Amino acid sequence: MQEYIQTTPDKLRALCASILEKHGMSPEDALIVADSLVEADMTGVTSHGVTRVKMYCDHIRAGGTNPKGKIRIIRETANSALVDADNSLGIVAAYQAMQIAVAKAKSAGIAIVNVRNSNHCSALSYYAKMAAKEGLLSIICSNSPSTMVPWGSREKYFGTNPFSICVPTGGDPLVLDMATSVVARGKILLADKKGASIPQGWAVDTEGKPTTDAAAALKGSVLPFAGPKGSGIAMMIDIFGGILSGSAFGPEIGNLIINPEKPMNTGHCFIVIDPELFLPGEEFKNQTDLLVKQIKGLQPAAGVEEIYVPGEIEHNNRRQKLKEGINVPASVCNELKAIAQELGITFAL
Amino acid sequence: MQEYIQTTPDKLRALCASILEKHGMSPEDALIVADSLVEADMTGVTSHGVTRVKMYCDHIRAGGTNPKGKIRIIRETANSALVDADNSLGIVAAYQAMQIAVAKAKSAGIAIVNVRNSNHCSALSYYAKMAAKEGLLSIICSNSPSTMVPWGSREKYFGTNPFSICVPTGGDPLVLDMATSVVARGKILLADKKGASIPQGWAVDTEGKPTTDAAAALKGSVLPFAGPKGSGIAMMIDIFGGILSGSAFGPEIGNLIINPEKPMNTGHCFIVIDPELFLPGEEFKNQTDLLVKQIKGLQPAAGVEEIYVPGEIEHNNRRQKLKEGINVPASVCNELKAIAQELGITFAL
Repeated sequence: MQEYIQTTPDKLRALCASILEKHGMSPEDALIVADSLVEADMTGVTSHGVTRVKMYCDHIRAGGTNPKGKIRIIRETANSALVDADNSLGIVAAYQAMQIAVAKAKSAGIAIVNVRNSNHCSALSYYAKMAAKEGLLSIICSNSPSTMVPWGSREKYFGTNPFSICVPTGGDPLVLDMATSVVARGKILLADKKGASIPQGWAVDTEGKPTTDAAAALKGSVLPFAGPKGSGIAMMIDIFGGILSGSAFGPEIGNLIINPEKPMNTGHCFIVIDPELFLPGEEFKNQTDLLVKQIKGLQPAAGVEEIYVPGEIEHNNRRQKLKEGINVPASVCNELKAIAQELGITFAL
Repeated sequence: MQEYIQTTPDKLRALCASILEKHGMSPEDALIVADSLVEADMTGVTSHGVTRVKMYCDHIRAGGTNPKGKIRIIRETANSALVDADNSLGIVAAYQAMQIAVAKAKSAGIAIVNVRNSNHCSALSYYAKMAAKEGLLSIICSNSPSTMVPWGSREKYFGTNPFSICVPTGGDPLVLDMATSVVARGKILLADKKGASIPQGWAVDTEGKPTTDAAAALKGSVLPFAGPKGSGIAMMIDIFGGILSGSAFGPEIGNLIINPEKPMNTGHCFIVIDPELFLPGEEFKNQTDLLVKQIKGLQPAAGVEEIYVPGEIEHNNRRQKLKEGINVPASVCNELKAIAQELGITFAL
């Protein structure tokens, strides 16, 4: 059996959208979710790609998320909005929230939009790039299910609470998108499956002691990156994303994998800034282009071939996959095929 | 000789203010700078305390910064301002910028104020706490002189570009304030003086190779925290603080220690948010109090006595020093005494 099936972004998007539509989503909403996941695969962030389709379908089927949720603004000013996601799929809520944030930032210069009652919204860079396309800077964060110990604790509290910061340039936008954990829990799962040990500093056991034993780490917790620094940032994201939105925070957030019947009630925060507030015309883009040029022109460290700026590797991946197609792992194809067959959808990749 | 002189915050503040006033600053501005430095000492962040007085005096004397700079708004909307610091001391410019940001956030809900043509503004938490005192959340960053390699480079480009995120609670505010380097360069200086080695991961040599040799590290560069993560954040701070303000960035920023005759032209960015945009009344503070209570109540890791939330140790230090006084190291006292005598100021601590 082949390890991968090669396909085009269009075919993959269409298949995923059909599957989600059959789960009760509107064609428009299904396409937003499918596009976000296919974009993640194209940029090489496969952990947030179409491998998530089954998870979202399971969440809908178990009643934990509402494919027909009515996303609406429940509080609003010229430069802010509080969006109630009505337990919709997080990707749709985040997409709509960023559209609102972009429109408000264009008219008001800076805008903040928060979302409550939401669910897993996958890669934040997807929304960040929406703002960059309009020439705007953005800071985005979301809280997520409890999987990480605060610094000094043996008990989990925070999610791996990710954030994204994105800046437009004359060329590709600069895109930072990271979790506040040292590594994704998935990497520890993989090490455990292989019987391999994990590097010191990734995780702690159930007593909060550092461990290199993958199995002990899985029972324990991943660590925040840079110790108290990442832990502090994760806390701030629980506040800016969760508390400020009126959403759940800490261990109150539902885990859609362990309890798919439960709404997650995550919160997201979108801050969008128009550089025209400070710099006229093309000056901002010219300066960011200069910064990128200068950094790319520095002498690399011994053993390093090229210095990459944030988002660059992902942009390169995307261009390559647009030309050469996407390889979808057989395991993911089989999942999609099984769901498609069950729903009477032609599996065409 | 005593290692420390014990004094009160009031005496120390008055002495430093007198010294700065004699250097041409207005009494009000001198007091702002003195207060910021004494606050840093009180919170235990002595690297940003009155040890900096001599550095600021040298910068003024060499003509690199203007003690009588006219700080003014040069672009403004209801929720934003671009402040030209006119090469004033950074602390005064940052203080005034935060006052403007607080006023605008109170009326507009969210505000962004950027500062150009500024200088070293010391601990960002000082300004962050100004917003928290008014019940507002804040995100602040500043770029700084080039001392750090971007991830993958052997050449320095970024400063240790710090940022602060601060959130009000019903009690002490939560205050995150960090550089984007693994450690301050000062710690490597100290190891070198002692002939000690430094831990792997702190720094690289001139070829960009990891080193545990303090002397090689001093010739080389400190590393960004968490590798590409800290490097990416440092770059975003050079953009949000520097480029967006129309200030210098990367190696163009003046180094006030090496070239005190040169303006630094750093930039700062202040984003301030009123939680009332989203949550009415006391709800935001109640929820952050609950978060703090829950985190403090988690079971500590093996070997850890207490879990601290961001800023807690500093708040505790401050309370202790208000009660017991501040110990100023003899070396710093001698510096202040020499400057005071030269200026005909009574050295009274």
